[in-house]
Amino acid sequence: MKLKIRRNSLNEQETFEQKVMRKHRKLRGKIEIIGRTRIKTTEDLATFYTPGVAYVSSAIRENKELSYEYTGRGNRIAIISDGTRILGLGNIGPYAGMPVMESKALLFKKFGNVDAIPLVLNCRSADDIVAVAKALEPAIGGINIEDIEAPKCFEIVDRLHEKLDIPVFHDDRHGTSVAILAALKNALKYQRKQLRKVKIVINGIGAAGVGTAQLLIAAGATDITMCDRTGILYKGRKENMNDVKAALAEHTNKSMIKGQLQDAARDADVLIGLSTAGAFNARLIKSMKSKPVVFALANPEPEIRYHLAKEAGAEIVATGASNTTNQVNNLLVFPAIFRGALDVGAKKINTAMQLAASDALARSISEKRLSADFIIPNFVNSNMAEITADVACAVAKAAMQTGVSRTKVDLKHMRKNVRSMLKRYSKIERMVARMGDGSLFSGIFGRRE
Amino acid sequence: MKLKIRRNSLNEQETFEQKVMRKHRKLRGKIEIIGRTRIKTTEDLATFYTPGVAYVSSAIRENKELSYEYTGRGNRIAIISDGTRILGLGNIGPYAGMPVMESKALLFKKFGNVDAIPLVLNCRSADDIVAVAKALEPAIGGINIEDIEAPKCFEIVDRLHEKLDIPVFHDDRHGTSVAILAALKNALKYQRKQLRKVKIVINGIGAAGVGTAQLLIAAGATDITMCDRTGILYKGRKENMNDVKAALAEHTNKSMIKGQLQDAARDADVLIGLSTAGAFNARLIKSMKSKPVVFALANPEPEIRYHLAKEAGAEIVATGASNTTNQVNNLLVFPAIFRGALDVGAKKINTAMQLAASDALARSISEKRLSADFIIPNFVNSNMAEITADVACAVAKAAMQTGVSRTKVDLKHMRKNVRSMLKRYSKIERMVARMGDGSLFSGIFGRRE
Repeated sequence: MKLKIRRNSLNEQETFEQKVMRKHRKLRGKIEIIGRTRIKTTEDLATFYTPGVAYVSSAIRENKELSYEYTGRGNRIAIISDGTRILGLGNIGPYAGMPVMESKALLFKKFGNVDAIPLVLNCRSADDIVAVAKALEPAIGGINIEDIEAPKCFEIVDRLHEKLDIPVFHDDRHGTSVAILAALKNALKYQRKQLRKVKIVINGIGAAGVGTAQLLIAAGATDITMCDRTGILYKGRKENMNDVKAALAEHTNKSMIKGQLQDAARDADVLIGLSTAGAFNARLIKSMKSKPVVFALANPEPEIRYHLAKEAGAEIVATGASNTTNQVNNLLVFPAIFRGALDVGAKKINTAMQLAASDALARSISEKRLSADFIIPNFVNSNMAEITADVACAVAKAAMQTGVSRTKVDLKHMRKNVRSMLKRYSKIERMVARMGDGSLFSGIFGRRE
Repeated sequence: MKLKIRRNSLNEQETFEQKVMRKHRKLRGKIEIIGRTRIKTTEDLATFYTPGVAYVSSAIRENKELSYEYTGRGNRIAIISDGTRILGLGNIGPYAGMPVMESKALLFKKFGNVDAIPLVLNCRSADDIVAVAKALEPAIGGINIEDIEAPKCFEIVDRLHEKLDIPVFHDDRHGTSVAILAALKNALKYQRKQLRKVKIVINGIGAAGVGTAQLLIAAGATDITMCDRTGILYKGRKENMNDVKAALAEHTNKSMIKGQLQDAARDADVLIGLSTAGAFNARLIKSMKSKPVVFALANPEPEIRYHLAKEAGAEIVATGASNTTNQVNNLLVFPAIFRGALDVGAKKINTAMQLAASDALARSISEKRLSADFIIPNFVNSNMAEITADVACAVAKAAMQTGVSRTKVDLKHMRKNVRSMLKRYSKIERMVARMGDGSLFSGIFGRRE
């Protein structure tokens, strides 16, 4: 008799890494594309393919804006990356970037009902990436730039933002800044301080640092000092500069102090880390004003651990980690912002829309529930559909008010609609999961003879 | 009392065009992107997003071929068009091309479980389209070129086929030719004639005509004469030529006849039209050998109507229309060929794979069922899942035999798997349709205040 030995039958503990790899290997792709209508009869085929579809094409030829009415373009965005700055892994290339982009697509659908296409590009220069993104414009209603190294990302996003009439969003820059501003608003509300009066230090001048400084300034912050590896950013600094840093130096550090992070942080109310693990320590926090706000947002390891920052005297601490309170997570932002932008066919995602999103996100925590350990909602404890609806409607409203929308919506109707589309997707998600995580799907690969 | 008048309450007959437009407008996109796993807990998020996904990215960084094992890249293709030759509409641009590309994506999923991304490009030159397609390669497992004008399409497809290690297929050229060869094989089998002995005339030297001539030659045809608007193609012709026509002139019309279509068709056994409505007449068919085979495949109107060709003496007639027997439809080909190619991670779709697909498609009609009016299966009367499984397995086998596969599969296992993945999708399709054609989805657009 032959004894079959099953893998894992020895009751060995599976590591987290092994579990992640096993689950990804089983799924072979975190997303898939499905039809939204049934094709059963020759008439279905005639209606949704030839010859019927020619009527639709002819109508759009006469007026290309009708592509928003008769195709899915208006709900479809491209997630574009070249793989040069993937998570904490750095420049690992486009192939290795795909798993992250698929995750993003999964979350765009789950939390925003946005159809996101993960596109990792074999491109080197900003020019090439801009050219591809521009070429794709007729196929999509928006672009989410993801994990492209700085300063290349700034040039790409700014050029696309200017040239295309579809929203171009850089999640590392814009999404992060919206989440941070929301958390900071609530932190200061709790402390009964005003954004325009507090002294803020931002450590890290990559995409997230730049986006955050820009949005905080737009929201009314007046006293921001930025630091990077070279030290404090000031007007006229020569070392380790680029165009974006030079522009920021004009609007930050008005007292022109020089030196290192510890010089900037002295007597600061707020310290925001968008840099690297271990960049903050207890002494740094102790040198700040009493009961400071510390956001240590480096991923996966923060600038300082939550409890160490607390022990050093910080009153309100936030990190990017899901295992502590106050997780500042873009997840709260990118699906909802695009939901709002797409529902009015926005041509841009402008600063007004980002500020509106930030406001709505902050307001999703009532004054009563607000505490030092609850300044930003968490996807597990919160009604995400409600939050998405709130944020999306605020974004849509701001888009209409600032004249970047293609269509006007009734906000009450929209709110209802966002809720029901998310509910509909939840049903699909449940059903697909019940089919065994979709394991039937393309299960052949890797099964070598 | 206020009387509400509903539109269409007058019992007016809705035209086919009105129905098509209404149904497309209601759907607002024939496809959508869904997740293949459920995100419910913080642990799900950690597994399928950060920090877990970094393990998957790191593994692919070490070996980019693992993108086929741990992401959906291997089941995902791009449908690429610039909108320069959409159906019978011609150069109507990329925006107007989208409805057709979405239809294709819908059919790729329905009949092949292939995840196809419809990408209409704002590109003008062959160079630009090639550059975009090359840039997209890390994100996809294959490319389907669609509705790009000749001769630009030949250059694009041939360059991509040569440079990329993923299959590049041109449906108008390759898909059509596979369907035609399958139908022709069965027609000649019914007539007890041999492909290598019959005299064949092809009218039309666009993508479909070129692909068909190339595949028929590869299958053993020896006597092919081609015609276009200028007349018969011969070696040394000067008028209305391009590189592809010049190359074809070397391998067709060996007796070097000159003149017009009627000169080529005299005494021919087979006449294949890939040209325009009304290009054939009764006299032309009467000048052919007795009981000829006539394929009038112009779309939407054929070169000659089915019954007129029959009346003129044709024994076997095929068209591209769904309302007559013998519809030569690419639908039988493109999903199945890609299913086979993707399941072995094919680097190319080569001629051997096309010939194998054609053979399998022809053999799906048993000798017993074969008749003058049943030379090619029809999607309504046939078991499409069976046909797809047969064709896909034949393609996979040929890919393995010709050394273009990335992985080997057990064909029995694969056949079973193809059947069950199509069955799984049918369930999803039914369920999504039951949700009211997905009308909840992004229903705001066009609802102007």
